[in-house]
Amino acid sequence: MIRVNSTDIQFHETWDVLVIGSGFAGLAAAIEAHKAGASVLVIEKMKSTGGNSRLSDGGIAAPETDIQKKYGFEDSRELFYKDIIHSGLALNHPDLVKVVVDNAKEVFEWTRDDLGVPYLDRIDIFGGHSVHRCYTAANITGGTIINKQLERLKEYGVELRKATQFQEYILDETGGITGAKIKAGYDAMDPGAGADALLRIRKGIVLAAGGYGADVEFRRQHDPRLGASIDTTNKSSATAEALKETLRIGAMPVQLSSIQLGPWGSPDEKGYGHGPMFSEYIVFPYGMIIDPETGRRFVNELSDRKRLSDKILDREHPCIGIADSTAVAGSGWDIGKAVKSGVVRVFGTMEQLCGFYSIPPGSLKETVALFNEGVVKGVDTAFGKPVIEKAAQFLKAPFYAIRLWPKVHHVSGGVGINTNAQVIDLDQKPIPGLFAAGEICGGIHGANRLGSCAITECLVFGRIAGRNAAQNIR
Amino acid sequence: MIRVNSTDIQFHETWDVLVIGSGFAGLAAAIEAHKAGASVLVIEKMKSTGGNSRLSDGGIAAPETDIQKKYGFEDSRELFYKDIIHSGLALNHPDLVKVVVDNAKEVFEWTRDDLGVPYLDRIDIFGGHSVHRCYTAANITGGTIINKQLERLKEYGVELRKATQFQEYILDETGGITGAKIKAGYDAMDPGAGADALLRIRKGIVLAAGGYGADVEFRRQHDPRLGASIDTTNKSSATAEALKETLRIGAMPVQLSSIQLGPWGSPDEKGYGHGPMFSEYIVFPYGMIIDPETGRRFVNELSDRKRLSDKILDREHPCIGIADSTAVAGSGWDIGKAVKSGVVRVFGTMEQLCGFYSIPPGSLKETVALFNEGVVKGVDTAFGKPVIEKAAQFLKAPFYAIRLWPKVHHVSGGVGINTNAQVIDLDQKPIPGLFAAGEICGGIHGANRLGSCAITECLVFGRIAGRNAAQNIR
Repeated sequence: MIRVNSTDIQFHETWDVLVIGSGFAGLAAAIEAHKAGASVLVIEKMKSTGGNSRLSDGGIAAPETDIQKKYGFEDSRELFYKDIIHSGLALNHPDLVKVVVDNAKEVFEWTRDDLGVPYLDRIDIFGGHSVHRCYTAANITGGTIINKQLERLKEYGVELRKATQFQEYILDETGGITGAKIKAGYDAMDPGAGADALLRIRKGIVLAAGGYGADVEFRRQHDPRLGASIDTTNKSSATAEALKETLRIGAMPVQLSSIQLGPWGSPDEKGYGHGPMFSEYIVFPYGMIIDPETGRRFVNELSDRKRLSDKILDREHPCIGIADSTAVAGSGWDIGKAVKSGVVRVFGTMEQLCGFYSIPPGSLKETVALFNEGVVKGVDTAFGKPVIEKAAQFLKAPFYAIRLWPKVHHVSGGVGINTNAQVIDLDQKPIPGLFAAGEICGGIHGANRLGSCAITECLVFGRIAGRNAAQNIR
Repeated sequence: MIRVNSTDIQFHETWDVLVIGSGFAGLAAAIEAHKAGASVLVIEKMKSTGGNSRLSDGGIAAPETDIQKKYGFEDSRELFYKDIIHSGLALNHPDLVKVVVDNAKEVFEWTRDDLGVPYLDRIDIFGGHSVHRCYTAANITGGTIINKQLERLKEYGVELRKATQFQEYILDETGGITGAKIKAGYDAMDPGAGADALLRIRKGIVLAAGGYGADVEFRRQHDPRLGASIDTTNKSSATAEALKETLRIGAMPVQLSSIQLGPWGSPDEKGYGHGPMFSEYIVFPYGMIIDPETGRRFVNELSDRKRLSDKILDREHPCIGIADSTAVAGSGWDIGKAVKSGVVRVFGTMEQLCGFYSIPPGSLKETVALFNEGVVKGVDTAFGKPVIEKAAQFLKAPFYAIRLWPKVHHVSGGVGINTNAQVIDLDQKPIPGLFAAGEICGGIHGANRLGSCAITECLVFGRIAGRNAAQNIR
């Protein structure tokens, strides 16, 4: 950080609000800050916008919506709250979760009805949710939402600078934010490139720089299991430098070891890849996961991500997710890309599947018989997975399979914030002029984020942060 | 913190090494720093020495000792390592655990054979250990060890100032430690009391200020379940101010949400009290825990502390620990104080016990029958608790019982250190001149500390920190 008296620094530019990061949270903040009358600059360190938000499936959770009504699902904010806390093993900060839950419906409608984000005409349930409450943006990508946010900012004439990295905070004598040092022409491959500039920030900085899922050295301090041998679904730019700079000025670190693994990852492709859609939308709700050594199920496939990942890691080798053709067809998803890339394999018979993965065929036959019995009875006696109405018995060739091994997907730890999205210091007092939203914040998801809640949370707190920065709340 | 050029500050005193805190770790550091030729000052914020170390039962774990040989227990450093990692849910920093494990035997012998700490002639096993490897200081208190450490420091003529609080680091232009601001005449009840002094520290500061188990506001950020309604076994002085000051100079925060609950705590007394000895030394190994609503066991009573605490909290009401007179007599422990204080209650018949706690008598009878069957067979089919040879069937009145409800006992999170006990910064580089040991360090115990490993770890890293500070390792 740089500490200054108000007179002893020559700023190159002046803005009301600086937003660091161009994902869901940053763009939402920029929109609201502009609407509140502030002059706004958005900086993005990469050469393209959207960061990890563009990699997401674009699934957003919200309770009490018109779509739930249309499809006949009863839900409530109370139930959504309960599911988030259960998934987070009760380490979630209750006041922050309440803000997300209370604003989820409104923020979903805002994307659809105000920004004009198109959504698929469907509603899904993911592991850990008690009810169908997840809506998926068209083209099954967060990019659909990001593009609509960018369109709106363009209409507003808000400036967004790519390849521009946040470097340091500039603090006044009281420890409040008075500016930022940034680097234009940033290039992750060439540390020497670029030119520094000092910005005076009159009202507030919104920190929306994302998580540290790809920062192997930093994440290992917090969970030493997650060395370089564990892959990540994140972009390589998901590193901790802005978070560290914020901790250096005395921000409260919150639950930095809450690092989420995606149980739907496959070791047969790099990064997020094509497999997770098959795992999450088809295998987990309608198919099953087996240990290839035993041919048996070992877990409720609709467990939340932490329980599911931990159970798979416990086996000490990749496990096999399987679905039959009825499940694939019934899901309505196109898994052509996943099959073409080879990460999902297709087998004409159960014997071929067993042969390929060295599964004891007798055991798998028994596992399938038990599974089918559960579908008929409507109850999964062994593992308590909710049997979904449209699930069919597991019988019909061809069979589809994927190898599963967890990947670092999301971090739930970060800097502490209060319900105003103000970053708090080690004594839990707001740092004047500093706001944060999105993955760089800690405490909302506790030990484990419930799937499809990240977009909700990024947008809810992004909007709050943008408004409060523009209003210069202290 | 205060940043200075070497010339612009007037120091009041000069020392080679400053040790902050007078518990196991701080005193071990002071002894070694003196032996290495340094001038050493120890400061303790409270009016008495020893902090939480004095409250401990004085149990220290070490593998491959002569006492294990004497009692016929086979053990190894590898097995000890495995137990620590298993208890910590593999969040432990492997390199730090290795240092503890490799030095455990030596440090235990050092206390006994060099410092002259008297130990009881017995060896115990606690939940999560695979084998008996825990030795208990005479009088069953950490104070026995602390007193021997203090004696040695007195022989050496090392100065120890009570009621003297660490306030701030003084850093040189490079960010290295050059001194400290302290307050003499500190009084926790009177914030205005005392006088500041600036110390020049030529070689190093050893931070051994303990944990934040009694700091409700700070611990709630990291585990929001642990508000004021959860009691703690710690002294009220176990607060976070020295830790926060260290984070303010850019130290790496590690696993601050790893806050351990003691499953042996009773809601019928404040603080640590008299009950835990009965719970841990008698009920857990030789008796059983039941849910009073069902009259059934629900857990392996020799599970590690996290699993056991979580299982009790899951019941949402205090549970009952029970032992019979055979177990109490066979244990060799005197539970007179616990009975006298009323936290352990004695019942002449099983019916009286059931009546007092509203336990369904039929269920408890079945539970006892199953328990006895397990003792006879030598295997606990239901929960997999190791059946200990001297465990007897559960039959003989009087029956002893305690209500159990977890208390905050120990924090495993803190500042990051490396194997030299150097405090690391956010980029994992040592902060020049700053060392740490004991409960203020994070990463050794991972998600959950294995019982009786804290004294081992405090002494091992305390000695390393003291030596390295005196040698001015950078």
